[in-house]
Amino acid sequence: MRLALVGFGVVGRSFAKLLQLKAGELASKSGLMPKVVCVIDNHSYSQDSNGLDLGKVLSKKNRSGSVGLPKKGLSSSEIISNTEADVLIETTQTNFKTGEPGFSHIKAAFQSKMSVVTANKGPLAVAFQSLTELARHNNVYFKFSGAVGGGTPILDFGRSCSKGDTIVRISGILNSTSNFILTHMERDALDFKSALLYAQREGYAEADPSLDVDGFDSAVKLVIMVNYLTPNKVAMRDVDISGIRGISLKDVERARKTGKAVRLVASADSKLKVSPELLDMTDPLCVSGAYNAVKFGCEFSGDKVIVGKGAGGMETASSILRDLIDIRGMLAARGSTSC
Amino acid sequence: MRLALVGFGVVGRSFAKLLQLKAGELASKSGLMPKVVCVIDNHSYSQDSNGLDLGKVLSKKNRSGSVGLPKKGLSSSEIISNTEADVLIETTQTNFKTGEPGFSHIKAAFQSKMSVVTANKGPLAVAFQSLTELARHNNVYFKFSGAVGGGTPILDFGRSCSKGDTIVRISGILNSTSNFILTHMERDALDFKSALLYAQREGYAEADPSLDVDGFDSAVKLVIMVNYLTPNKVAMRDVDISGIRGISLKDVERARKTGKAVRLVASADSKLKVSPELLDMTDPLCVSGAYNAVKFGCEFSGDKVIVGKGAGGMETASSILRDLIDIRGMLAARGSTSC
Repeated sequence: MRLALVGFGVVGRSFAKLLQLKAGELASKSGLMPKVVCVIDNHSYSQDSNGLDLGKVLSKKNRSGSVGLPKKGLSSSEIISNTEADVLIETTQTNFKTGEPGFSHIKAAFQSKMSVVTANKGPLAVAFQSLTELARHNNVYFKFSGAVGGGTPILDFGRSCSKGDTIVRISGILNSTSNFILTHMERDALDFKSALLYAQREGYAEADPSLDVDGFDSAVKLVIMVNYLTPNKVAMRDVDISGIRGISLKDVERARKTGKAVRLVASADSKLKVSPELLDMTDPLCVSGAYNAVKFGCEFSGDKVIVGKGAGGMETASSILRDLIDIRGMLAARGSTSC
Repeated sequence: MRLALVGFGVVGRSFAKLLQLKAGELASKSGLMPKVVCVIDNHSYSQDSNGLDLGKVLSKKNRSGSVGLPKKGLSSSEIISNTEADVLIETTQTNFKTGEPGFSHIKAAFQSKMSVVTANKGPLAVAFQSLTELARHNNVYFKFSGAVGGGTPILDFGRSCSKGDTIVRISGILNSTSNFILTHMERDALDFKSALLYAQREGYAEADPSLDVDGFDSAVKLVIMVNYLTPNKVAMRDVDISGIRGISLKDVERARKTGKAVRLVASADSKLKVSPELLDMTDPLCVSGAYNAVKFGCEFSGDKVIVGKGAGGMETASSILRDLIDIRGMLAARGSTSC
């Protein structure tokens, strides 16, 4: 199976390493023999229809910061359109407002009859419906497990829950940065600002943390889950969003005295909401630190919770690989690929 | 799709009710149009190749205790062999020693080219390998989600985790009865015997609770998970089993003082073991009451935990229905069924 990779940051590079590490097992267990024919980063690209040597591309990137030749005016979308591949792996930086550049990359791939696996929430935030429709129209597959919950198979798990039962409520702790901050306010008696500084020092929060602590990241993931797992079609504007900047150390300590904890919860039932809530500390949803958790309330079989690390390069790479294995299975079932 | 049901206790009847409740949705969402052509209980059976009226069968069972005509010397396996059906739903009582009568029912179905969905742990405990091989040999499907975790899709989740990554450790709280007892020892300061009596009064423990509190039920579920999710082929005799009878109120209180709880944990890494362990109360695995939880330790993406109710008629019925939808999809993919 021929792959094109666009985006070669932490996740893209982790995926390349994972492919190297698991090559033998993938072939024997899943019949998947991936061949990376194109790697594109911000300023450079490398192509070989016989398959690139990933070790060489990784060490070139480490050494020189580029993956190959300079693009010289070519856009990544043009390079994608000119590449013969079965699946595009899209891991460029998330932009919640425009969805770019991921949106254009994914569109270019679909129009060239490539399936797409992405961990980029941007295009999903701005154009979930149109992208899924475009994939269907071009008779290709579109998977995005890594966009919700890093390496934790939250979307797959939700699909399992909705088979044989109906999901009537979703609630989740979906943003690792906010959860890390709230947990450290609790544990180390820090106010919001100090906990944020600590999270930034430890690499859990970005210099501009607003997408995380103001609830947008959680909201996108909620929108993806609702669109993917229920018959409802929703967009970012449907979510009532408030973040955790207003949470004081006093709030956190008052909660703890009654066996509760403040958590940033994204929920979907009759309405969509992201806001700080008090959770019982014994509630399986009430995870600490950089963990994510989602609770699916099902009509007949009750509440089911999934917990796992919500981010990380290798974690997200493993989700991308899972999606790729699924796509390989679907392509093989319709006779479109032999490996 | 033509179904035969053998076993019409709590789970079998819940499944029949679920089919009635979800008939419309199943057809529109999954293309599944089940037609129950045979129902067998301990002493009676009812058959109609045009499809039985489940409402009538359920009310007859409620009214008279039987589902139809007396068997008159026919065994359930003989009735199964003489039935034209696509899938057998096996929900008779679990026997960990012989696996019967479920083992014979499943064999009879496979030999008649029926796929099987079961929630019965007995046959899986005594003959996991030979049954999965027999299914393969007869080119039919064998699914048993409801045998581990009631309605919680633990096996499906494990499969997701092992795609794109490798499960290197499994640990789980798999027996609701034991967990209910330990939780009430903790919460209500009861000793083991009093907590067991309470669990029996509340319907969480059977008159003879040994399969649950002595660890056998957890061990079977561990064996099923390891066989289904890893390349290792194991049997009950490979599991080192100890139960919770020896746990004193003092043990539980001593644990609580250090932020820990005693739980009956089934684990598989280099060896297979069921035994009481001390878990940190903040560990997502450390669930309370009748909940089950399983933690999959993955090579690249770390620990993932799934939590949900471990038993219950409707819960288990929803797992059976999930398996049936999967089988329908697989049969349709190879062109063997239209509904």
